[in-house]
Amino acid sequence: MLLSQAGSNQVQAQTVPPDDGPVKVSITVSINKIYNIDTIAETYVIDGYINVGWRDPRLALRKPGQPETLIYFNDQVTQRLGSEIWWPMLEFINIIGVRSVLSRDIEIEPNGRVNYSERFSGTFASDMDFRKYPFDTQTFEIKLESFSYGDQKVVLASDKAISDQTLHEEWTFEKPKAVIGTHTYPAFTEKYSSYRMEMTGKRKHDYFLWQFFFPLFMIIISSWIIFWITDFGDQLSTAFTLMLTVVAFNFYVSTLLPRLPYNTFIEISIISGYLTISLTIFVIVVHHQVVERGYEFAAQRIAVASRWVFPLGYVVSMILAQKIFLG
Amino acid sequence: MLLSQAGSNQVQAQTVPPDDGPVKVSITVSINKIYNIDTIAETYVIDGYINVGWRDPRLALRKPGQPETLIYFNDQVTQRLGSEIWWPMLEFINIIGVRSVLSRDIEIEPNGRVNYSERFSGTFASDMDFRKYPFDTQTFEIKLESFSYGDQKVVLASDKAISDQTLHEEWTFEKPKAVIGTHTYPAFTEKYSSYRMEMTGKRKHDYFLWQFFFPLFMIIISSWIIFWITDFGDQLSTAFTLMLTVVAFNFYVSTLLPRLPYNTFIEISIISGYLTISLTIFVIVVHHQVVERGYEFAAQRIAVASRWVFPLGYVVSMILAQKIFLG
Amino acid sequence: MLLSQAGSNQVQAQTVPPDDGPVKVSITVSINKIYNIDTIAETYVIDGYINVGWRDPRLALRKPGQPETLIYFNDQVTQRLGSEIWWPMLEFINIIGVRSVLSRDIEIEPNGRVNYSERFSGTFASDMDFRKYPFDTQTFEIKLESFSYGDQKVVLASDKAISDQTLHEEWTFEKPKAVIGTHTYPAFTEKYSSYRMEMTGKRKHDYFLWQFFFPLFMIIISSWIIFWITDFGDQLSTAFTLMLTVVAFNFYVSTLLPRLPYNTFIEISIISGYLTISLTIFVIVVHHQVVERGYEFAAQRIAVASRWVFPLGYVVSMILAQKIFLG
Amino acid sequence: MLLSQAGSNQVQAQTVPPDDGPVKVSITVSINKIYNIDTIAETYVIDGYINVGWRDPRLALRKPGQPETLIYFNDQVTQRLGSEIWWPMLEFINIIGVRSVLSRDIEIEPNGRVNYSERFSGTFASDMDFRKYPFDTQTFEIKLESFSYGDQKVVLASDKAISDQTLHEEWTFEKPKAVIGTHTYPAFTEKYSSYRMEMTGKRKHDYFLWQFFFPLFMIIISSWIIFWITDFGDQLSTAFTLMLTVVAFNFYVSTLLPRLPYNTFIEISIISGYLTISLTIFVIVVHHQVVERGYEFAAQRIAVASRWVFPLGYVVSMILAQKIFLG
Amino acid sequence: MLLSQAGSNQVQAQTVPPDDGPVKVSITVSINKIYNIDTIAETYVIDGYINVGWRDPRLALRKPGQPETLIYFNDQVTQRLGSEIWWPMLEFINIIGVRSVLSRDIEIEPNGRVNYSERFSGTFASDMDFRKYPFDTQTFEIKLESFSYGDQKVVLASDKAISDQTLHEEWTFEKPKAVIGTHTYPAFTEKYSSYRMEMTGKRKHDYFLWQFFFPLFMIIISSWIIFWITDFGDQLSTAFTLMLTVVAFNFYVSTLLPRLPYNTFIEISIISGYLTISLTIFVIVVHHQVVERGYEFAAQRIAVASRWVFPLGYVVSMILAQKIFLG
Repeated sequence: MLLSQAGSNQVQAQTVPPDDGPVKVSITVSINKIYNIDTIAETYVIDGYINVGWRDPRLALRKPGQPETLIYFNDQVTQRLGSEIWWPMLEFINIIGVRSVLSRDIEIEPNGRVNYSERFSGTFASDMDFRKYPFDTQTFEIKLESFSYGDQKVVLASDKAISDQTLHEEWTFEKPKAVIGTHTYPAFTEKYSSYRMEMTGKRKHDYFLWQFFFPLFMIIISSWIIFWITDFGDQLSTAFTLMLTVVAFNFYVSTLLPRLPYNTFIEISIISGYLTISLTIFVIVVHHQVVERGYEFAAQRIAVASRWVFPLGYVVSMILAQKIFLG
Repeated sequence: MLLSQAGSNQVQAQTVPPDDGPVKVSITVSINKIYNIDTIAETYVIDGYINVGWRDPRLALRKPGQPETLIYFNDQVTQRLGSEIWWPMLEFINIIGVRSVLSRDIEIEPNGRVNYSERFSGTFASDMDFRKYPFDTQTFEIKLESFSYGDQKVVLASDKAISDQTLHEEWTFEKPKAVIGTHTYPAFTEKYSSYRMEMTGKRKHDYFLWQFFFPLFMIIISSWIIFWITDFGDQLSTAFTLMLTVVAFNFYVSTLLPRLPYNTFIEISIISGYLTISLTIFVIVVHHQVVERGYEFAAQRIAVASRWVFPLGYVVSMILAQKIFLG
Repeated sequence: MLLSQAGSNQVQAQTVPPDDGPVKVSITVSINKIYNIDTIAETYVIDGYINVGWRDPRLALRKPGQPETLIYFNDQVTQRLGSEIWWPMLEFINIIGVRSVLSRDIEIEPNGRVNYSERFSGTFASDMDFRKYPFDTQTFEIKLESFSYGDQKVVLASDKAISDQTLHEEWTFEKPKAVIGTHTYPAFTEKYSSYRMEMTGKRKHDYFLWQFFFPLFMIIISSWIIFWITDFGDQLSTAFTLMLTVVAFNFYVSTLLPRLPYNTFIEISIISGYLTISLTIFVIVVHHQVVERGYEFAAQRIAVASRWVFPLGYVVSMILAQKIFLG
Repeated sequence: MLLSQAGSNQVQAQTVPPDDGPVKVSITVSINKIYNIDTIAETYVIDGYINVGWRDPRLALRKPGQPETLIYFNDQVTQRLGSEIWWPMLEFINIIGVRSVLSRDIEIEPNGRVNYSERFSGTFASDMDFRKYPFDTQTFEIKLESFSYGDQKVVLASDKAISDQTLHEEWTFEKPKAVIGTHTYPAFTEKYSSYRMEMTGKRKHDYFLWQFFFPLFMIIISSWIIFWITDFGDQLSTAFTLMLTVVAFNFYVSTLLPRLPYNTFIEISIISGYLTISLTIFVIVVHHQVVERGYEFAAQRIAVASRWVFPLGYVVSMILAQKIFLG
Repeated sequence: MLLSQAGSNQVQAQTVPPDDGPVKVSITVSINKIYNIDTIAETYVIDGYINVGWRDPRLALRKPGQPETLIYFNDQVTQRLGSEIWWPMLEFINIIGVRSVLSRDIEIEPNGRVNYSERFSGTFASDMDFRKYPFDTQTFEIKLESFSYGDQKVVLASDKAISDQTLHEEWTFEKPKAVIGTHTYPAFTEKYSSYRMEMTGKRKHDYFLWQFFFPLFMIIISSWIIFWITDFGDQLSTAFTLMLTVVAFNFYVSTLLPRLPYNTFIEISIISGYLTISLTIFVIVVHHQVVERGYEFAAQRIAVASRWVFPLGYVVSMILAQKIFLG
């Protein structure tokens, strides 16, 4: 049937917002669970509930004898949204791919108040700053805007942002905040009202202390022992075995994080491992040459000095690194 | 067509619960298979059957000559649930993503009794405690609630919770339990009736005994041999080779579990490996220095003592660890 | 529209089986390809055809002038199954997730004979016994039952079970068998007629001979050479290098199989590697101590004996392992 | 509505082929891109276009004033195929899972000529022979047959098979060929007309030359140096370090190919590495024993001979392997 | 209903383009985010908006009293595109699989101007040249063409191509360009109007400097130290340990890039590592032989020369490699 004909006009009537001024659409996001926090892709999956409410006077008129509240479920909702029932066309801005809707319902109260509820699951993205990794704090977000209506037509408002603080075993979360703002796009003159839920989480670093820093420091402490070894061959083979071990740690760390254009604390720890062991190799070879050429006394001083300079130097540089990166 | 018109009212009539008081909805969950138990994500996939039963007097009236029981299948069910046939809007609370429905049917008995059956497959999540891993016991759950109806409208009841005890080769399961409770949400004043199926499973640890602890203990026992070696160079290279092997075990273990904020028994075993070998290196270097400086007797005592102290110390500390973690 | 009204009764009429006695439903399963045989998950993907045939007298009445056979395709079939055309509600019992249907058609012959054909692809699971791995034989299955109808209503019959014997490069398959049985569920009083297609496949082990056993035995044979080395330091470093290599094989094997509560032949081979090399280390340290303490003759005897005892002992124990595991 | 009634007969009329004799269906497959060539699963993803043409006189009758050509798009096509418009029920025989349809249209010319076009993307499988890997040539195929109509009803014809020869960076492709044949199934008496598009591709082996063979040969050449070392301990540790490196290459190769029941050229190269290094170890131990027992002259001859025999033997055996595997 | 009947003709009327001459279709692509840049598969996922505008006079006629602009959402759009509303059948040419549509709407202005907007997410492919990797620059593209209409019917025009320059943390992007062209297919005589959005991105190489080149150069610098070692055994074991480390880097690099038929800068760095260490081994063995045969002076000269030749040679060759590959 052609669009210009009478009947089709009625079917799409509810795609026009209910008011002339902007419709106030209130949003409550409630997080059920965060999972698959992927530090390589900087994404996380959120399973949550979203409740959206607004008033549409066109739905208020009811015949006497009707039930007080109309409720529609799942497929019944999908069929009516955008045709019989106007819908503010909210979209998740920072979602990756399509969200799954596990359940949805819509309640229409006698006064025309519409309450849309949905349980969703989707992958969301945020920019993460890993400079302090694994002692970092990240912000997990859900951003909502209307896909079609500028802020002349739809204005978002926040009812609440709800979540447990025990969402994920590996993180400590603060209470979520909901921020209402306005978003300008370079391509459009219209502004868009935006809703942003923010949750700040602090990574629990205990795992890394025991499974990464403890063995790494064990390796580096072992490298200080080299200066207490007298045979040059033993010194060399010990140093190179330790170097190889640091290479293994290096490859392990490359599976934890994206290929960042900056150094993180965990990478600095690896690099300092390379440096200290390389320097050790350099010193023992110099020492060896000095001995070979017969400067026994100088050799002795190098050996004794190294025994104190290396541990001290490493500890001092780690304290500095901690100050710069984590302070 | 506008909602306020007569016809549309009839179509959605069955979204109103059949009774004024709460409808009693009885649930039977029957587990067919558990698979993909993922200890990193703390999830598992359940393939099972769910049977849901309730009485809807509005469906009881039948014309003479009708078949005794009405049965609908698959798409026929989807079309009718929520429109012709009222549905309690059950949802799986602890599901990850969307469940797959393999088959479904609905039977309506002459007296209005409705029996909904579904074979589903979905990924579910539970919090797992890995402190005793791999000697741990975990609880696998399926939680059900109504998405839309508070306990004033829908009350869940458990018929049965059924499963084989041979669901998964790597676990020994106890008989499942079904628990009916009430769930309060911070965002809502309504309470929700909840159904929770619980299955307790004990991990079969034989694999880890042979593929993890056996080689790890072989490595650690080998480290005790170092004190029976007389050449310092041989001692050193042996110790560092063993250290490198423990690093390999460390990386292997990091593929088994999430990055937990606490230490597990398997990690403690690795850490004790690091400690014992590091201590060995420390002792042989001290011994070497003592020899170098000419204290032959002291060196001899260190060597002899270490031969007994290390094995004894390790065995004692492992017994303690077992007491603390597994006892 | 309410169910109790006249029209809706007619729409769902075909969900009642065509006969009073059980309907005989004949099944032919024909395997096109098996792929993704996953020994960790104990699953495999089957691409095949299923043909299901039964007689429904209600579909037999035809007007003169109609085509002899009615054929419906794909979506046309989906729309009619369960509404116009009765369907025995078959489901794959041992499927993982949902099957994909690539093509389907339904033929209705003038006498009411209905032939349903479908090309499907799905992931199926069977319990596998890996004790003899990689010399094992596994049974791949497809199990079918009616989801809704007990054996009073639907009885399955097997026409044929068809498959090539060259389904998968890594396996040798026997001719498939189809077995008709009856399945009792603890939760239901009804029995269900079941169809089970079974294909027995023998793993081709050539790959493992060359890529696993050959290098492993090379490593173990190399360990026997240790007793022909005279320097204790060389003996030690050789033994520990070999130990490290066995650890690498150990980690490789852990990627092949699930974490089984029993030992497989391939794991026993690894464990015997650990044992023989550990024992070697023990013997060379004892020998070293014996030499150190000046018992030259005893040391000589240990060395000479080990040269024969180790190879012999290993060969004997491998023959025994083979008898116990593979015999 | 019951099937035997008048109306339903008309709706499904087009499922009967347009002619009494076989309908000639011409096929053009055009490959856009090949990607994800997976040598483990022996599959590849093809993104391409398929054009299918036939004549259906029943669609030829047109009223005056109609547009010359009817075109339907995407969902419009899906709704009409098999109901209004007859469709030869083509299926991809060697597809894995379900294809995605990115776009589709159907054109009906005034004379009843129907042109169906589709852009598809799907995973296809072919048997691959890796004996010459990575110097192998493989055939990539797309096989089409009618799912429902034997060659009495539908006969396929090839218009063209089109593809760039620069489909994949890692392969050099020849011009594709389209072959029309007849396929007999053991389960059916009917024969099926089949269309097979074949593209032969030669793997570009440069990568393997530099990233696999170069380092492997470096390792093996290094092993020849062992006979120029005079100290037995140095010989041994060098040989075992090289052995460990070959093990690393072995594990790397096991990630490239399926677990084939035959040896490939790349595996033979690894095995020859194991053999040459094992033999080296054997020779140096024999040489060591000969020296130990005082046969200086014999020892000298063994050492000198080995310096020439090993390189020569390896080069000769590699030439032979190349002849046998690649010749 | 048969196609030749009157009614069906009207339903599909809008599949005929609105004008006799080519319809001008203007396109704006706006990139929201690029993620999953996969250098192995040479693909990337783009989340963006596409706005498509054209004029269809048939939609211009409006009754008085209608709303000024008609808006349809999501499913309402899907139902109307290709039936009520003509659609230019645009397709993404370089997409891999099917795109997801997150939101879509269509606005019809009173003058017949149609504005289609869509938020999409899809995997796209471009040929990438990795010769300079990780100092490379790549072009990310989105190509659009009409699936059905040649350039006699549909002509594309570019409004804008919009994107942030901070799309991905690991890349620096230039401003996007939109190019309108004409595409000829070997299989068709018709030409197609094409739209190509191009974004040039420069990889941020800092990560590789610190995580790859730094440790690799550390290894190679360490290899120069070998000539300052006097004991041949120490020289050998050091050299082979370093060789093994380069093998580890080799395997790591093979996880970064596809199996390219050409060498990249990162691979050349690895190969130069193999070469320099192999050459080192060759020189120390020659030196050892020269010493063994008593030519002390020659040996001394070799040793001293190597100390300068190796570092110099390596630096020179790296400068050359940089010139050839990156210059």
